[in-house]
Amino acid sequence: MVLALQWQEDAQTIRLLDQTLLPVEERYLDVDTVDALVAAIQSLAVRGAPALGAVGALGVVVAMRQAESEGWGDERLQSEVDRIRLARPTAVNLAWGVDQVRAAMPSGPETVLKMAKAVVEEDEAANRTLSRLGADWILDRTGKQQVRVVTHCNTGALATSAWGTAYGIIHELHDRGALEVVYVDETRPLLQGARLTSWELTRDGIPHLLEVDGAASSTIVRGLVDVAIIGADRITANGDTANKVGSLALALACQRAGIPFVVAAPSSTVDLATAHGDDIAIEERDAAEVLSLGGHPTALPSTPVYNPAFDVTPHDLINAIVTDRGVVEPAARPDPNLLASVAS
Amino acid sequence: MVLALQWQEDAQTIRLLDQTLLPVEERYLDVDTVDALVAAIQSLAVRGAPALGAVGALGVVVAMRQAESEGWGDERLQSEVDRIRLARPTAVNLAWGVDQVRAAMPSGPETVLKMAKAVVEEDEAANRTLSRLGADWILDRTGKQQVRVVTHCNTGALATSAWGTAYGIIHELHDRGALEVVYVDETRPLLQGARLTSWELTRDGIPHLLEVDGAASSTIVRGLVDVAIIGADRITANGDTANKVGSLALALACQRAGIPFVVAAPSSTVDLATAHGDDIAIEERDAAEVLSLGGHPTALPSTPVYNPAFDVTPHDLINAIVTDRGVVEPAARPDPNLLASVAS
Repeated sequence: MVLALQWQEDAQTIRLLDQTLLPVEERYLDVDTVDALVAAIQSLAVRGAPALGAVGALGVVVAMRQAESEGWGDERLQSEVDRIRLARPTAVNLAWGVDQVRAAMPSGPETVLKMAKAVVEEDEAANRTLSRLGADWILDRTGKQQVRVVTHCNTGALATSAWGTAYGIIHELHDRGALEVVYVDETRPLLQGARLTSWELTRDGIPHLLEVDGAASSTIVRGLVDVAIIGADRITANGDTANKVGSLALALACQRAGIPFVVAAPSSTVDLATAHGDDIAIEERDAAEVLSLGGHPTALPSTPVYNPAFDVTPHDLINAIVTDRGVVEPAARPDPNLLASVAS
Repeated sequence: MVLALQWQEDAQTIRLLDQTLLPVEERYLDVDTVDALVAAIQSLAVRGAPALGAVGALGVVVAMRQAESEGWGDERLQSEVDRIRLARPTAVNLAWGVDQVRAAMPSGPETVLKMAKAVVEEDEAANRTLSRLGADWILDRTGKQQVRVVTHCNTGALATSAWGTAYGIIHELHDRGALEVVYVDETRPLLQGARLTSWELTRDGIPHLLEVDGAASSTIVRGLVDVAIIGADRITANGDTANKVGSLALALACQRAGIPFVVAAPSSTVDLATAHGDDIAIEERDAAEVLSLGGHPTALPSTPVYNPAFDVTPHDLINAIVTDRGVVEPAARPDPNLLASVAS
């Protein structure tokens, strides 16, 4: 298994796989200062909500070790921890990770490190659990010995502390000998499917085919796959989900084809305070993501752009939401508070 | 209106807009030899089925003028015409365009030119007619004064002799003051929407927003558009259509949203010999189109790729097929020979 992040015990540093260089180059960054960590977060060398949570918690240890060696007072140390916490203001998991361990700072870096490692281990354990549950559900539902899967974006070890969510289910199916092939959407505009998921599948020796996002509906409707498995950014109380833009097309095609559409996420993704998907504001991102790729312009620079970060899949199109606390079936069992049973 | 190709009366040459340089640069090629024409066709400086038909017919005149000035015998001239005819073997319209005028070669270049101009004019006239019919149908069906449109790929003047098909309807709506905005899918892998359609809309002063293909389903389901209008590569007897890959996602989303999905094409696109879409073989294109963009790799070069050129939209998802010979409604009136009334 690939690892996006690892704690280096001897050096007391975080080793990060620099994801900005993938798939061209596999280079690791050994992060031993707050400056280096903030730069790595801001450049997207490390990304993905659960991975950022882990890095936030471990980052507090890095700051405390730097405070020791450079003789910072507490005020300076706290302000450096705040810099980590706010390095990407929209990434709520980063602040969450810092907050998991911050109160323990007076007990010293060994205690904080122990708590940070627990954050990492709990994320991996949740992923392993939901992957087993998801593989069980899919094999039971399809009644097949081997399944062909389509997925979108990156939900693998690169986006999490370890193992992955939707990708974790795919990995689990592969380990059981129950996976035939994975169709991977390239996932414009940032190409996480092409750059990260196909690289991770190659490293894990899992058979796959890369396709443009526009091909996915036809792949599904023509009967080339048995199930779609994707991640989620947010899950509302009734089971509507916000996922990477392009996911809704897969859900609609699965309904047409009569195959299951499966969403996988840790129980922490469930937001019971939001009743349904219509209440989710759609974040719009920078036009530059659409207007160029690798410095090469794809359209006139003045072209007006609509660049939503995610889309919302209504619960009636979702056959299963798989979490570490269990599986719920929104399409089969509509219920305004369906997710209460698996929320954390 | 932009023009992909124009006959230059004084010089007896074809002026082509070099589409390989768009949107960065607007440069024209004056084609006065068979070598230059074959190079322009093979480099995709000119592309699009109707445009290639026009270029094939006009190309015979270029060959005859070159034969005069260079003193070719008939055998040499015929072999040069064959080179034009076969410059892109999969582009059947190119051979069709040559064949429209070839039999008239003994009558001299003036006669051939007159026939070639008729090919160009008939294509533009068909586009103008279907655009009026399409705009009428859409305004009647939606009951709106102004409509918001989503489209895919390039079906404009750049792909045709002039005016365009699906793009022609959009242009017609704009000229009537009945168009609010066009959402343009970038259309991976070759980005015809980003590079060509958004450029053409800018030149024509038509308001638009560029989006990644994965955004289209959500744009439709969220109610941001009133109609989808796309082109077709082939239309079977029952009204199934082969369109640029990514089109099926729009059709499925339109069904969910309850808005019309409209396919526009000249009547020559109808293939009554093919009963339905299942009988259409899906052409797969080169993996390199998916694995890189502008020389920048998007995935490991060894990544296996699935790269279908088009997808098939079943007739029950198509509310209107608009041709120069009339409009048929496949979803509302299922009929195995529905297209017979508009075939040419």
